[in-house]
Amino acid sequence: MTSYWCERAWLGGDAVDEGVVIDVDGDRIAAVNPDVAVAPQGCVRLSGVTVPGLANSHSHAFHRALRSTTESQAGSFWTWREQMYALAERLDPDGYLALARATFAEMVLAGITLVGEFHYLHHDRGGRAYSDANRLGSVILQAASEAGVRITLLDACYLHGDGGAELAGAQRRFGDGDADRWAARVSDLAAGPTARIGAAIHSVRAVDPTAAAIVAAWAAEHGAPLHAHVSEQPAENDACRARYARTPTALLADIGAVHSRFTAVHATHLTTDDISILGTARATCCLCPTTERDLADGVGPASRLRDAGARLALGTDSNAVIDLFEEARGVELDERLVSGTRGHHSAPGLLAAATRDGYASLGWPEGGRIAPGATADFTTVGLDSVRLAGTETDHALEALVFAASATDVRNVVVAGRSIVSDGVHRDIDVARELHDAIVAVRS
Amino acid sequence: MTSYWCERAWLGGDAVDEGVVIDVDGDRIAAVNPDVAVAPQGCVRLSGVTVPGLANSHSHAFHRALRSTTESQAGSFWTWREQMYALAERLDPDGYLALARATFAEMVLAGITLVGEFHYLHHDRGGRAYSDANRLGSVILQAASEAGVRITLLDACYLHGDGGAELAGAQRRFGDGDADRWAARVSDLAAGPTARIGAAIHSVRAVDPTAAAIVAAWAAEHGAPLHAHVSEQPAENDACRARYARTPTALLADIGAVHSRFTAVHATHLTTDDISILGTARATCCLCPTTERDLADGVGPASRLRDAGARLALGTDSNAVIDLFEEARGVELDERLVSGTRGHHSAPGLLAAATRDGYASLGWPEGGRIAPGATADFTTVGLDSVRLAGTETDHALEALVFAASATDVRNVVVAGRSIVSDGVHRDIDVARELHDAIVAVRS
Repeated sequence: MTSYWCERAWLGGDAVDEGVVIDVDGDRIAAVNPDVAVAPQGCVRLSGVTVPGLANSHSHAFHRALRSTTESQAGSFWTWREQMYALAERLDPDGYLALARATFAEMVLAGITLVGEFHYLHHDRGGRAYSDANRLGSVILQAASEAGVRITLLDACYLHGDGGAELAGAQRRFGDGDADRWAARVSDLAAGPTARIGAAIHSVRAVDPTAAAIVAAWAAEHGAPLHAHVSEQPAENDACRARYARTPTALLADIGAVHSRFTAVHATHLTTDDISILGTARATCCLCPTTERDLADGVGPASRLRDAGARLALGTDSNAVIDLFEEARGVELDERLVSGTRGHHSAPGLLAAATRDGYASLGWPEGGRIAPGATADFTTVGLDSVRLAGTETDHALEALVFAASATDVRNVVVAGRSIVSDGVHRDIDVARELHDAIVAVRS
Repeated sequence: MTSYWCERAWLGGDAVDEGVVIDVDGDRIAAVNPDVAVAPQGCVRLSGVTVPGLANSHSHAFHRALRSTTESQAGSFWTWREQMYALAERLDPDGYLALARATFAEMVLAGITLVGEFHYLHHDRGGRAYSDANRLGSVILQAASEAGVRITLLDACYLHGDGGAELAGAQRRFGDGDADRWAARVSDLAAGPTARIGAAIHSVRAVDPTAAAIVAAWAAEHGAPLHAHVSEQPAENDACRARYARTPTALLADIGAVHSRFTAVHATHLTTDDISILGTARATCCLCPTTERDLADGVGPASRLRDAGARLALGTDSNAVIDLFEEARGVELDERLVSGTRGHHSAPGLLAAATRDGYASLGWPEGGRIAPGATADFTTVGLDSVRLAGTETDHALEALVFAASATDVRNVVVAGRSIVSDGVHRDIDVARELHDAIVAVRS
């Protein structure tokens, strides 16, 4: 049993509590005691504000190697994708392990305790299967374990190129041939104490409705989360309508994929009916504001989705930035930009998306909260940086969401283990490993 | 004479140079020598990327105390303004000095070497003149000097409330009564080696055309920069059109204010004619993207202004964030959000706005560049953080603009003096002073 005394902690309400003791037994929170003004002897002292561990509900770890390198050219989402494909074509298992391990370690430094890795690069060059068909999935699970982050591996089915074309170039590394082979392969992936397996339909571009139904059925059978990229770009909607006479959301709903274990990633360009479908189903919509801004996707209808009944989650997606506080405020700030008004989302609401609702969307409903029985995952943000100096308890939640950055994270506990102390990763020299891994895969 | 060896430096072109020696004599750069692969003996070694010092072309230092505190309420620019006025009403000279000194020190830590302080709070409560009429202006100049930042004090004329109403409440502290009294007062402000005086028309809301012409004439007579808030909000445009039958830009042009020493701050909601007027005049438009996003102002036509001939500069404005890299990328990223395409602004173009063009807009045309004869103001960004790990020379400028944060700034030289070394301010415990100053003015 380890006990932590938090100078301030957010227990899920509208404000932070001062003086909270968290007792941890193994990988679970055993007890939470508020109103403890002075740190009891033997407690680990956590200065600042302690919040549930942050859930990064949508990541492609290997995109980290593209950071800044795609910014010198004009273009669109689709030309950016060509640069991403060129990187995907080059990766081998050793390079991928080093890159994913360092990227996941960067996430833990940023306070992320659970990552949903949306995994579509599962084959060798030319689409050949590795001798262990899940070689790259295993690499990702190993990377997460070594980095100290909890993971849901969302293995993505990807069968077709745009317009139903055959897979070409790097895309061939994404394909299983058909959905039954995808299901057989994914069924062999092994979960663990800090790893679970989920399913993903890459998108309605890459998976036809019959195959998508097979993926959805696999997820239902396994009680697993189901994720899909949905309506990130208008062109995706146009192509889906031309081919299937309905929107991506309606198409997925028709094959039974849209339910409370479903997460629509992006959900940027939706119709009113789409919003109603997602809300009524109590589905989750995972917004990735820094990526959606970087890739010129546009601003999704986050507050309308929430008002319709959908839950919100957050993802760093392309990892051009790894900072879940910036993702959280991006939801609100980008709605301000297009609406001309403030106050669409509250700080507690955005923090719930970054914690509790992200955990649920990744199949860990017992996590993302500081409460007895919950997974012992929590993150402490210092208030002693120049960014946060002047923060008082009455607006500490607003400071976290609207002013904090990843560099303000001081301590991170995952599954009861202290992974980050005083801003330093216990096992990994993160900047050095990132540098070495990125330089290796760029050359 | 002090010599610095820069591992990499940006000398104004499309990429960084590796191995650059900067010789500094007094407060000026004496010589710049590229292609020096190994640091010569006796040189101060600057690892990372050295760029000209950053110009923060639009600041209201005291707004720093509002950071995060205004985020818990819904509303608009106009309701936010009520919270700002409540703070303005409380400030006294001692509290203002402490707050401005700490805020300017936060700026220097962020690599800012020149601040344009747009100064409208120059009277005591009730509008009474201080016994030294420039008491608060002197406080700001003292704060900048102690913080080690170069300053242009842009003293703002502010005569009327919205719709031509009499000044009320906190606004009374902004008013000189008439423009002649404003000019007499401002003529008494003393420049210094690192301080210059500029003029500002607060806005066409607060200054009638006759008075605005007097301010513009004062600036012309003194060869001083002239700034004004322009078209930040649609309501400002509507009121101006209703009253004067023209846009704010057209109105300012009619009274002779729009020229190459003029800076339009925000310039968010412009007509095609406004853009043409500003471009033809070679005026500067100072964008403040983090504030414009925070206050739900909208996204200004930055690339159209540039294409029309206007220069761009950047400001932290409300200081909800002090990070000029984030301001720079915000210009591009927010245009992506509303256009659906990428590549409106290049990294070197945005860095020029953050340096050379900001210096020019604040009346320091000899600064903002690393060149012989320029002011010896430069900033070094380390590449060893997890955010920037993996950056190579070929995309170092893109990394600075699209991925760096204020916390990556390692060294800052202003007027030949080293103010920040290894990320630490030489004279000020910045976080502590910010905390103390903010808590004092909030209570």
